[in-house]
Amino acid sequence: MEYASFLRQHIEQIVPLNDEEFKLVENYFKPKEVVKKEYLIKAGQKVISEFLVVNGLLKAFLFDEKGKEHIIQFAMENWWISDYPAYAKQHTGEMCVQALENCFVLELSLENKNQLCEKLPKMYRFFGQKSFGGFVAQQKRVLSMMKNSPKEKYELLLEQYPQLFQRVSKTMIAHFLGVSRETLSRLHKK
Amino acid sequence: MEYASFLRQHIEQIVPLNDEEFKLVENYFKPKEVVKKEYLIKAGQKVISEFLVVNGLLKAFLFDEKGKEHIIQFAMENWWISDYPAYAKQHTGEMCVQALENCFVLELSLENKNQLCEKLPKMYRFFGQKSFGGFVAQQKRVLSMMKNSPKEKYELLLEQYPQLFQRVSKTMIAHFLGVSRETLSRLHKK
Repeated sequence: MEYASFLRQHIEQIVPLNDEEFKLVENYFKPKEVVKKEYLIKAGQKVISEFLVVNGLLKAFLFDEKGKEHIIQFAMENWWISDYPAYAKQHTGEMCVQALENCFVLELSLENKNQLCEKLPKMYRFFGQKSFGGFVAQQKRVLSMMKNSPKEKYELLLEQYPQLFQRVSKTMIAHFLGVSRETLSRLHKK
Repeated sequence: MEYASFLRQHIEQIVPLNDEEFKLVENYFKPKEVVKKEYLIKAGQKVISEFLVVNGLLKAFLFDEKGKEHIIQFAMENWWISDYPAYAKQHTGEMCVQALENCFVLELSLENKNQLCEKLPKMYRFFGQKSFGGFVAQQKRVLSMMKNSPKEKYELLLEQYPQLFQRVSKTMIAHFLGVSRETLSRLHKK
């Protein structure tokens, strides 16, 4: 799989790189194939890496005490995924990250990320902008969870990520939105 | 008000600065006093800045269509606050940011932030780390909103920010947690 040009494009959306710089960057990423249903992260394991999706689709999720699934995040091409609270502290987490399709991802450990940034400080800008985008997206989600009706939540997701609805089951959409499968079916029919 | 040493300490928790660098940094921040109940941001206004709290306490909130208040964020000393979804796009927003005590804040516009980072690239690292911390905190909040009972949400907040409970009303805590005032009173008595 030719992932180098993908990675370069992904980074150059924010920070331009010359050939030598990209060669350096590339070394810090570890390519990984994951088959459908396979786990990249399992609850209870130490989380040291995040993953950039080159191809495929994954979910980050956990089960609560009643055995109910909550989906924190989906990730498709060009998105990053991990158990971020665990990754930030480099300790064990409570989430799982699982492939929903056959996937090709690039793994980046926090250690490698820090080393890369020290060697090539312009990468601070890249990761900073990614983090800020993620922060704003999460705050929008908090807002939507607080004030939107199930119907509004559903419409917002459909508007933002129409591709998602082609690729994941309705049950998973329901587990992401925090609405019941029945409510979702009702909304979907409208 | 002597805010320069506060600002320098705040930044140097992440990035060391020499005197000359700090002098540059300082110029981009605009000091501002806000009296209790005054607004830093009003819904419907264009949002171009974020604010670092030197002293005092503020909230970012909005009213939904039913007139119910939702508090997105509190901010105390060393925290940053804005209507971030609006700030990120530099357009009008739906949130208000209001002082809950007399406050002293430092205003930083996105334009100034970008200029500062271009002149002093190590500031990309500072803002990147702040954003990443914010992203992780928001993701934890999404997680808590999804899976925790009102009791667990209350206990988590009390554990993370005990000072908050001394400084804001129970109604506001309820509007932040998304639980009713009655539920909160019941939890508080336990």
